Amino acid sequence: MQIAEPLQNAIDELSKLPSIGRKTAQRLALFLLKSDKKYVEDLSKSLLDLKEKIRECKICGNISVEEVCDICNSPKRDKTTVCVVEESSDVIAIEKTNEYSGLFHVLGGVLSPLLGKGVDDLNIKQLFERIADSSINEVILALNPDTEGETTTLYLAKSLKEQFPHLKITRIARGIPIGGDLEFSDDATIGRAVLSRIIL
Amino acid sequence: MQIAEPLQNAIDELSKLPSIGRKTAQRLALFLLKSDKKYVEDLSKSLLDLKEKIRECKICGNISVEEVCDICNSPKRDKTTVCVVEESSDVIAIEKTNEYSGLFHVLGGVLSPLLGKGVDDLNIKQLFERIADSSINEVILALNPDTEGETTTLYLAKSLKEQFPHLKITRIARGIPIGGDLEFSDDATIGRAVLSRIIL
Repeated sequence: MQIAEPLQNAIDELSKLPSIGRKTAQRLALFLLKSDKKYVEDLSKSLLDLKEKIRECKICGNISVEEVCDICNSPKRDKTTVCVVEESSDVIAIEKTNEYSGLFHVLGGVLSPLLGKGVDDLNIKQLFERIADSSINEVILALNPDTEGETTTLYLAKSLKEQFPHLKITRIARGIPIGGDLEFSDDATIGRAVLSRIIL
Repeated sequence: MQIAEPLQNAIDELSKLPSIGRKTAQRLALFLLKSDKKYVEDLSKSLLDLKEKIRECKICGNISVEEVCDICNSPKRDKTTVCVVEESSDVIAIEKTNEYSGLFHVLGGVLSPLLGKGVDDLNIKQLFERIADSSINEVILALNPDTEGETTTLYLAKSLKEQFPHLKITRIARGIPIGGDLEFSDDATIGRAVLSRIIL
């Protein structure tokens, strides 16, 4: 069968997005076809703006409109603590909690021999320079607790300790998630939660 | 917390799409932020093209690049049969089966007092004119088998019979879906399947 070419194009482009299959792409394209022209234009422009107006903060690697991002620029943030994360999405996740008021450092990934990502492919050198040049006295490692995140955490902890012996290096707690259930948690998580128990 | 404005805009616009919540919108926006500029431009353009290049076929109401759509224009289609559907997406669904070679007529919805859709809001007048002016001798009603689809089917069947007594009017079969299971089908579907049994 033949689908009108502009519709087929839109379906093809939309189905390249993560978690959007061909059926969903078709539904989205038909929805847009019926939408106001104004909305389609706004959507289209907002996507282009992503690439045109956003860059990496030259200090922390987080996404930013200006050369230096709002968090690095803010006088209200605690400049003695930096939280190291994999991606900008992790910054958003931590910021949403309102529990952290320090700075961030976005690595842009984790060490991964499989994906060919080594130390030089990540924002690691910049992290060391930043610590050397500033009043940072605590580094919180907040990488995902998977194999590669763990490897990167151990590598960073070791290298940071060697180079800055007086730096406080911490990692975010691993344990049973809030609202989680002991019965349905995996052994590794429960084991870690027991080992990391805290005094009340 | 503050998200960079262009990112926030893109998330807002994306989350207006059907079945895209705020979390998915954020994931898509961050994916686009990391994608090639070329891809984001292609995607953006393909969406604008939907509104700019596609219109309704003046004969059948299906989506079309030209004034008359490929199906209405094709010399290979059976011009004596027209299949009435609610939306262009239904044309795509039927075309994919390769079981139908006639023409289509897209109503643009169904009769719905709740949504304030009456006879004049749908492509119904055009359907009657089309049948009067052409060699169409069978109308297949292929609306969704929900309450409003049923009402519209009954209305069309009655009006068409009155105006064109010699026209063959059919509807697509309702029954157990292929691969479906009697045990898990609802009573109405099983009842209809028994009533509509065919001789082997």
